[in-house]
Amino acid sequence: MRTHLLIATAVFAVSSCIAPQTVSSPTSEATNSASNLYDKVLSETRARLDSAIGNPIDVPVPLDAGGGYTHEQHKRNAKAIYQAGLLYEATGERKYLDHAVRLLDSYVELYPTLGLHPKQKEQTPGRLFWQSLNEAWWLVYTIQGYEIIRDDLADDKRGEIESELIRPMAEFLSEGQPQTFDKVHNHGTWATAAVGMTGYVLGDQSYVEKALLGLDRSGTGGFLRQLDELFSPDGYYNEGPYYQRFALMPFVLFGQAIQANEPERGIFERRDGILEKAILSTIHQNYAGLFFPINDAIKDKGIATQELLYGVAVAYELSGDPALLSVVAEQGRVVPTEGGRQLATDLSAGKAEPFPYQSMRLRDGANGDQGALDVLRASDDPNGFTAVVKNTSQGLGHGHFDKMGLLVFDRGSEILRDYGAARFLNIEAKYGGHYLRENDAYAKQTIAHNALVVDRTSHFGGVTEEGNKHRPDIGDFVIGERISATSASIDKAYPAVTLTRTVALVNDPALEAPVLIDLVRGAGEGLHDFDLPWHYNGQLVETNYTIDADTIARAPLGDQAGYQYLWKVGEAELPNAQAQTTLLLDNRFYSLTSAVPEGTHVLLAELGANDPDFNLRREPALILRTPLSRSASFATVIEPHGEYNGIDEFTLASHSQIERVEHVEGDGMDVVQLHLKSGETVSVGLAGKSGSSEQHIMQTDSGAVSWTGPYEVIGSDQGE
Amino acid sequence: MRTHLLIATAVFAVSSCIAPQTVSSPTSEATNSASNLYDKVLSETRARLDSAIGNPIDVPVPLDAGGGYTHEQHKRNAKAIYQAGLLYEATGERKYLDHAVRLLDSYVELYPTLGLHPKQKEQTPGRLFWQSLNEAWWLVYTIQGYEIIRDDLADDKRGEIESELIRPMAEFLSEGQPQTFDKVHNHGTWATAAVGMTGYVLGDQSYVEKALLGLDRSGTGGFLRQLDELFSPDGYYNEGPYYQRFALMPFVLFGQAIQANEPERGIFERRDGILEKAILSTIHQNYAGLFFPINDAIKDKGIATQELLYGVAVAYELSGDPALLSVVAEQGRVVPTEGGRQLATDLSAGKAEPFPYQSMRLRDGANGDQGALDVLRASDDPNGFTAVVKNTSQGLGHGHFDKMGLLVFDRGSEILRDYGAARFLNIEAKYGGHYLRENDAYAKQTIAHNALVVDRTSHFGGVTEEGNKHRPDIGDFVIGERISATSASIDKAYPAVTLTRTVALVNDPALEAPVLIDLVRGAGEGLHDFDLPWHYNGQLVETNYTIDADTIARAPLGDQAGYQYLWKVGEAELPNAQAQTTLLLDNRFYSLTSAVPEGTHVLLAELGANDPDFNLRREPALILRTPLSRSASFATVIEPHGEYNGIDEFTLASHSQIERVEHVEGDGMDVVQLHLKSGETVSVGLAGKSGSSEQHIMQTDSGAVSWTGPYEVIGSDQGE
Repeated sequence: MRTHLLIATAVFAVSSCIAPQTVSSPTSEATNSASNLYDKVLSETRARLDSAIGNPIDVPVPLDAGGGYTHEQHKRNAKAIYQAGLLYEATGERKYLDHAVRLLDSYVELYPTLGLHPKQKEQTPGRLFWQSLNEAWWLVYTIQGYEIIRDDLADDKRGEIESELIRPMAEFLSEGQPQTFDKVHNHGTWATAAVGMTGYVLGDQSYVEKALLGLDRSGTGGFLRQLDELFSPDGYYNEGPYYQRFALMPFVLFGQAIQANEPERGIFERRDGILEKAILSTIHQNYAGLFFPINDAIKDKGIATQELLYGVAVAYELSGDPALLSVVAEQGRVVPTEGGRQLATDLSAGKAEPFPYQSMRLRDGANGDQGALDVLRASDDPNGFTAVVKNTSQGLGHGHFDKMGLLVFDRGSEILRDYGAARFLNIEAKYGGHYLRENDAYAKQTIAHNALVVDRTSHFGGVTEEGNKHRPDIGDFVIGERISATSASIDKAYPAVTLTRTVALVNDPALEAPVLIDLVRGAGEGLHDFDLPWHYNGQLVETNYTIDADTIARAPLGDQAGYQYLWKVGEAELPNAQAQTTLLLDNRFYSLTSAVPEGTHVLLAELGANDPDFNLRREPALILRTPLSRSASFATVIEPHGEYNGIDEFTLASHSQIERVEHVEGDGMDVVQLHLKSGETVSVGLAGKSGSSEQHIMQTDSGAVSWTGPYEVIGSDQGE
Repeated sequence: MRTHLLIATAVFAVSSCIAPQTVSSPTSEATNSASNLYDKVLSETRARLDSAIGNPIDVPVPLDAGGGYTHEQHKRNAKAIYQAGLLYEATGERKYLDHAVRLLDSYVELYPTLGLHPKQKEQTPGRLFWQSLNEAWWLVYTIQGYEIIRDDLADDKRGEIESELIRPMAEFLSEGQPQTFDKVHNHGTWATAAVGMTGYVLGDQSYVEKALLGLDRSGTGGFLRQLDELFSPDGYYNEGPYYQRFALMPFVLFGQAIQANEPERGIFERRDGILEKAILSTIHQNYAGLFFPINDAIKDKGIATQELLYGVAVAYELSGDPALLSVVAEQGRVVPTEGGRQLATDLSAGKAEPFPYQSMRLRDGANGDQGALDVLRASDDPNGFTAVVKNTSQGLGHGHFDKMGLLVFDRGSEILRDYGAARFLNIEAKYGGHYLRENDAYAKQTIAHNALVVDRTSHFGGVTEEGNKHRPDIGDFVIGERISATSASIDKAYPAVTLTRTVALVNDPALEAPVLIDLVRGAGEGLHDFDLPWHYNGQLVETNYTIDADTIARAPLGDQAGYQYLWKVGEAELPNAQAQTTLLLDNRFYSLTSAVPEGTHVLLAELGANDPDFNLRREPALILRTPLSRSASFATVIEPHGEYNGIDEFTLASHSQIERVEHVEGDGMDVVQLHLKSGETVSVGLAGKSGSSEQHIMQTDSGAVSWTGPYEVIGSDQGE
């Protein structure tokens, strides 16, 4: 074995040979469990491969589309080559090298016989796979395993594998598909990473240069350009965290290889350390271990995915930041590489420190000028009270139509939620595991989100190309002790209507715990219907309104733009222009108290109409509807409170502490007043587009309220 | 402090004084966490009381019904007296004694002024509380705290407390309410325990004797009689585990006091150790930490409730069984007594052994002849594949109308579930926390359960008094390697119709994992509609039938007997008399494959119709309906299979392995054949009322099947 230089496997210490049957010494529990994270992945990998070695090699002629048998088998084979390399290195056992060679031999026979895949997908067909993306993925895994065994192969064997399989595949992925290879898109990154990593292993600098600079080596395409454009300056990826996770992988692996082979390129310093930022921003975009489910996101994906296991290992190698060890503890597993070993060792040595989850603005766009994902966290607790405001750009084909959509989480659960994608990934019985028709027809539509809907149509008319052209105009983002807040507006989501949303996390001694203020406004020409939906989680326990429920018949809420999937289950008048709804979820109560326009009423809904295949989850929603108005403002306080303890049979503070919310609107500024049952009043001044020294003054029923800068909490004294 | 003899606090070692701020020594993690269970409860108790000591005493004039302010405050005060005693003993700090005395002084002033409670409940009013049950509960806690401080009080203080408060209350609970005190009912047990424990503390043997033998000391009433009659010989309590938990508490505490004061009575040996059996059977009636939710049960109640914390401490003192330490680990907390300390110490010393969860029949009725609760567990894993068949008696006023109802659990979740009680305990906004009208109207009805319904009416016409008269005739209960099974029948649930259910847990090498066979039959005179409901958990992913869904309008399934709460959401024909439904829950698939009578169709339903107050959870159900038949048999295989892994993106075995279920019915015997897609056939012979040596032979399409005894799995060979 030579010293190899694809970092994922590079500094693997042969001396630290792992015998899976070894019993850890009985020191502290923490030490055991942490070192076991590495032992565990090694012994699992070994068990899996040992069992595969006993079976015949299966390298089928490509036939199936994604998810089908030959597709999955070729994926398994690439992983097996990779893992065989790792295990050969870790154990020195020849059988692992032999297994990798047997697999490679079969591909040496197969690959030259292949034309394009019979089920080729659109404009980017592969040969082993229906799309070249999968082929690049295959080579990224295979080349890492091959590197480890390469020096121990006979010259003719090595020559054969490289000339019949690896070089042809690298050529196919580069010169063979310039439209993908040179594209600034994550599919392009997979191709450049595969070819560039192959270049390092084969010692072919021409592959490396094409990978870095594009086929013409001009820098208009290639990995460096991709690195410069696919992430925002804050490391945000414009499709959102679910796809960011997937896009991240080739960046991390090829980046590591560049660093190991050509450290003089300073790849990890590029764009002020954009690679590390991309990894860290992916971590920051999780709640309770799962990614914020904006856009097309399947909700069980989170920080424990393979991509982020690699990401954390690389970030740790770069920074040695002990906060990453807390992330590893949350992930509960490591990659079977030296990086993974190091993480497990340091975790067991008790070096972990809390990961600094915090409020942050992640700007969108290569230049950071395409909106932002705004995260408000009440604490560094990964399961703490958190709001996400989606002030980002559309997110291309996987984007959803919820400009300035809101998500709220607490105690490890969704409180106001996003449906995510309508898809059962890898479940054959559900449309082959593909995106369901309900994804376009419901999950992408505005009404499926906690975002303002005008006239029962989606933002941008539900047209992605239109959405791609626009993004919110973001206002001030401020983090403070008493208030952290964000604001944004857009006037292109609907013709001649402007939408504005300001969300603030407010801390005040008069409040039991931090609350969110959510101020949503729609205003334009002519009369419109404004719908503000809240997709809530939990049981409805108390309302200040009397619900006229649809108890013996139900009909859908509408017939298009996603409304057709929601049953109307009740409605209620709001005579005092105040809506208060209390929910119970697990052991906590949540009250939503809103000042709404006169004439607003409440619609209660449940998902599941027009769903003949039972594809949608049955989830409740509540919609504040203001009909036929020039404008509508909804000022809501979202308030976690009290405790329900079913085990010890007690309940505390099950009622909202808010008597009434008052909203006073001015020119570019607002005051929201929380009149508490205790008699105290908390006033919040909001002016999301003002300099930090700008002065604001507004009259309220209880007197003048003044503040400086964009957002401020004004104690109850001033208003009196 | 004298040596006191109410066991809960009896052998509390003063020398083991707990300073809450003490940092545990950094030995192993396991040791820390376990010893912390005791440290934790002590320091929590101390913190709570220290904070209360700073506030004025609050002993209000009784005014409110259950759940109201004065009710809850008197409960808090009794706990405070109890805890003050414990802390006085643990720390020796006088302030705790003083706090208890201050509270007692206030009651000394209040109690003599009280007549019956203004909101007296039915025939059993209290003085401090609306019902005497709560008053007995109050004295049980108070007398334990009082015992600890008693010897350190001045004679006149002691005399005052006893003559003005404790004796009057004990008299009120005994001579003052003979109808409750002498009743063989758990309310009677609370009264006898309170009075008997008071007798030991005051040294008044007349109290003890009345408590043990009834007011006339004849033994026709009193604690011993209650002990003889309220639990079955297997320790089952006829209202089910939710109420068993509550009923257990006074038995355990008074039992302990009797043992400490009059060991010669051999109270723990009585009825072959019935007290310990009652504690153990309560533990056995949990799944994943929560009690089987049969009858009126609130689902968040489980083994971590106070009552069972005491129960486990007492059981451990009796038996020292290290399996109980595993229960403590599941409970995650201990009581703040010597028993709790011992559990925590031994748990930290690593002495825990697995609790022997296993298949078992818990006979119902004082003589064990009133049916049984049958539990089938595939392993000793508390989260393993488990079925519960409710072959018990009615369970009195809290009983539900589901003779031979079925519950199925796997991987910590409900698969086929029971709604439990319709009640939000302690949630004022939900009808004051009382049982909701939907409890009688829906949750108790047969259709709310996985039990056979005839002609859309509930068992016994939904009349409790009628239900109380009858119980299933239980057949053989067998535990074996390849099959564990139970059978029961009843001919009194409906006029002239007999219901039979046989449930078998089957293990066979041809199967990926154990499956359940559920054979349900209804047969009688005349033509009837038979409905077999399954209240399933999870997402419907695949069916062998085409659903005609109610996509744009919904109506309730019926107008009475609970049907009015279920929306009809779809229906389907079953042309081949086979129904196969596959569900996905978390990471596992579940298929239900049934052989059904010709003409059977499927109804799909969702809960929530006629629910104007949003009181019911939205849960789906599937109903197999056989219309207008003399009889109907449903032979179902319930099969967990495969894996869905969303994190690593793979899916295994998402389809059922069963091609077809064949059911052949004979005279008192049945064969159910599982024809697998692999080509193999697993035959199961079921004859639930036959001796162990009885021979059975039946013809099937694939030949004769013969077996001996009630239940047997016959390999695929014989059938060919």
